[in-house]
Amino acid sequence: MYEGVVQDLIDELGRLPGVGPKSAQRIAFHLLQAEEPDVRRLADVLIEVKARVKFCSICFNVSEDDLCRICRDPRRDQTVLCVVEEYKDVVAIERTREFRGRYHVLGGAISPIDGIGPEQLRVRELMVRLSDGTVTELILATDPNLEGEATATYLTRMLKDLDLTVTRLASGLPVGGDLEYADEVTLGRALAGRRSAQ
Amino acid sequence: MYEGVVQDLIDELGRLPGVGPKSAQRIAFHLLQAEEPDVRRLADVLIEVKARVKFCSICFNVSEDDLCRICRDPRRDQTVLCVVEEYKDVVAIERTREFRGRYHVLGGAISPIDGIGPEQLRVRELMVRLSDGTVTELILATDPNLEGEATATYLTRMLKDLDLTVTRLASGLPVGGDLEYADEVTLGRALAGRRSAQ
Repeated sequence: MYEGVVQDLIDELGRLPGVGPKSAQRIAFHLLQAEEPDVRRLADVLIEVKARVKFCSICFNVSEDDLCRICRDPRRDQTVLCVVEEYKDVVAIERTREFRGRYHVLGGAISPIDGIGPEQLRVRELMVRLSDGTVTELILATDPNLEGEATATYLTRMLKDLDLTVTRLASGLPVGGDLEYADEVTLGRALAGRRSAQ
Repeated sequence: MYEGVVQDLIDELGRLPGVGPKSAQRIAFHLLQAEEPDVRRLADVLIEVKARVKFCSICFNVSEDDLCRICRDPRRDQTVLCVVEEYKDVVAIERTREFRGRYHVLGGAISPIDGIGPEQLRVRELMVRLSDGTVTELILATDPNLEGEATATYLTRMLKDLDLTVTRLASGLPVGGDLEYADEVTLGRALAGRRSAQ
């Protein structure tokens, strides 16, 4: 329907996650009208990201060098390891400024429906990392959903013979939320995990 | 928060229409994990679109040549001109296969709130096109919203002294819709524009 290259652009944009045919069309028309240098900047950064971004050889965090910023930082505590699903979870935890240990990025969560088992994740690399005994506490910070829970349960079982404190992130009411709007599971967890009031 | 070039990518993606910070992040992470040739294809088509897509020198439709497909086609009726806001409106009308005339793309609609007046649109070019008398019917096919109506009203006034049949797209109930779900204005228009039943 569209002139050749415009249709190509719409097709390529439509392959991005969360971009449906209507959004792809809208973005394409925006780019048609945009200034050439603005569009070139987007094209350049796409190329650059693929050329420069690698994964940290220790923790599999996104990195422009062989080691990521966190693994390079000698002030980070090597004895505490936080296991997350994705790079974005590292960023979310870093944003809290509450964690001074290091990370291990699994690259996803166990999801039989998507054909993702422990072999598809960086579980073997985790076990190798733990084998020298430097890490004494391991925090399982997978997502609080079905896949994340399955992954945490699997890892807990894998780790039970190691001399290691294994913890999970606390479940409960989100801060700033309304009790009445919390779903039953969350509220149930918050009740089960109740702590003595100071 | 992110490694330099990843943050650059998120920033660039966030400038696209309808892509908020969360979507930009999601798309960026998708691209980080995507295969290099797939990302390169997107980058290439962005560059190509800006290099190859021009605007038709007659109707201002998007075109890879000096004249667009429609203006190049000798079978298209030169006496009927359909005035639309944007290239995507040309595509929408072409999809109906009901129109065999030509187009004039204004490049937007009058919107004082966005600082867009008739001078920012291709109104002068329209008047020049009409001056040789080839066009005998002009269809105002602007959007049925405030800006589109304002534009159509303005053009109707501009055109009233020319020897020209000026028509508007019919307003009424969308085909396949439910009468009870139509808004009052649409239903009112449908009533006012009622036609004799065959």
